[in-house]
Amino acid sequence: MRNEFVLVPASEARAVHVASGGRFRVVDIEGGQVVDLFAFAAGDVGEYASAEHTRVAVNRLFPRVGEAFVTNRRRPILWLEKDDSPGVHDMLCAACDPVRYRLLGVDGWHPSCQENLQRVMAGLGHDRIEVPQPINLFMAVRVEPDGSFIWSSAPTKAGDGVVLRAALDCVVVASACPQDRNEINHYRPTSIGIQLL
Amino acid sequence: MRNEFVLVPASEARAVHVASGGRFRVVDIEGGQVVDLFAFAAGDVGEYASAEHTRVAVNRLFPRVGEAFVTNRRRPILWLEKDDSPGVHDMLCAACDPVRYRLLGVDGWHPSCQENLQRVMAGLGHDRIEVPQPINLFMAVRVEPDGSFIWSSAPTKAGDGVVLRAALDCVVVASACPQDRNEINHYRPTSIGIQLL
Repeated sequence: MRNEFVLVPASEARAVHVASGGRFRVVDIEGGQVVDLFAFAAGDVGEYASAEHTRVAVNRLFPRVGEAFVTNRRRPILWLEKDDSPGVHDMLCAACDPVRYRLLGVDGWHPSCQENLQRVMAGLGHDRIEVPQPINLFMAVRVEPDGSFIWSSAPTKAGDGVVLRAALDCVVVASACPQDRNEINHYRPTSIGIQLL
Repeated sequence: MRNEFVLVPASEARAVHVASGGRFRVVDIEGGQVVDLFAFAAGDVGEYASAEHTRVAVNRLFPRVGEAFVTNRRRPILWLEKDDSPGVHDMLCAACDPVRYRLLGVDGWHPSCQENLQRVMAGLGHDRIEVPQPINLFMAVRVEPDGSFIWSSAPTKAGDGVVLRAALDCVVVASACPQDRNEINHYRPTSIGIQLL
């Protein structure tokens, strides 16, 4: 499966299995697109990359290159090996979901990262998963000194990406965020890719 | 049950049922003590106060007085009605757990907010719960402009507290954080209280 390229069409998600030590690059194909990234231990999907445990482990809002995302059992699951994007990422905000779009005024169904994740995991036989807080690659949410958030559009250019290395055998899910009701994807969701290295 | 005072001894936790509209005050009895607070919908403990959904709802790291903590289904569950503490709280860090203490060099068992929560919920018949990220009242974790964290001791004085109002029938669990291996509780965990108003 090395050197395989997995296209994740706009507003959809795909899963890849990555063995411990395996590396992959998440790439923003056209630029300006947020990726909601999730990682589950392959042997027990009750263990997953956890924002609140990662923040404590790295003692900051988001890991730096060379640091790891850890699971809800405080084990490293993904190392952030390289970042050739502007380095703007979010690990504060929940995945978009049907309620989020309803609250944003959408009538009827709208694709969402939460449903994308659930569908992809169900396809792998995991019908009932807890939806973790995602690693929101390329998502621009700045924290002001008073704790308030300033949202802006993903600053990535076409081809920007990050390289991650698995610390455990894991199932990685990447969702090309369907958010088109605020600025994060420039109101125009596009495709992303997972390059297995 | 109104006007009942529930003592939560140092390093332990207690649960209270609060009906929709009910108010309670979480009080730091001696001062300088962090409270890990959790809230679950009484009818379905799969719905609970969620840090990542709350941050999006209030568009900041922590609600202000008059704002609500929301659940993982984006429904208000607790309103922050009054804050007569220094107003320093955390909603970034996972509850302490056995692995946390092992990583901090503790040999053998150490009480933790995660086990406190699990024990109290099991006592209510909920043997298998997801452990949500807590609302860490009085916990001082400052975010620097570069995203790094500065931890310090809880700045509360004896009798300081916050008043919360339930937006749903809920089970509220308060853990008097047992952390004695870093500064957050001044290396000396003490008791807290839940005053039902």
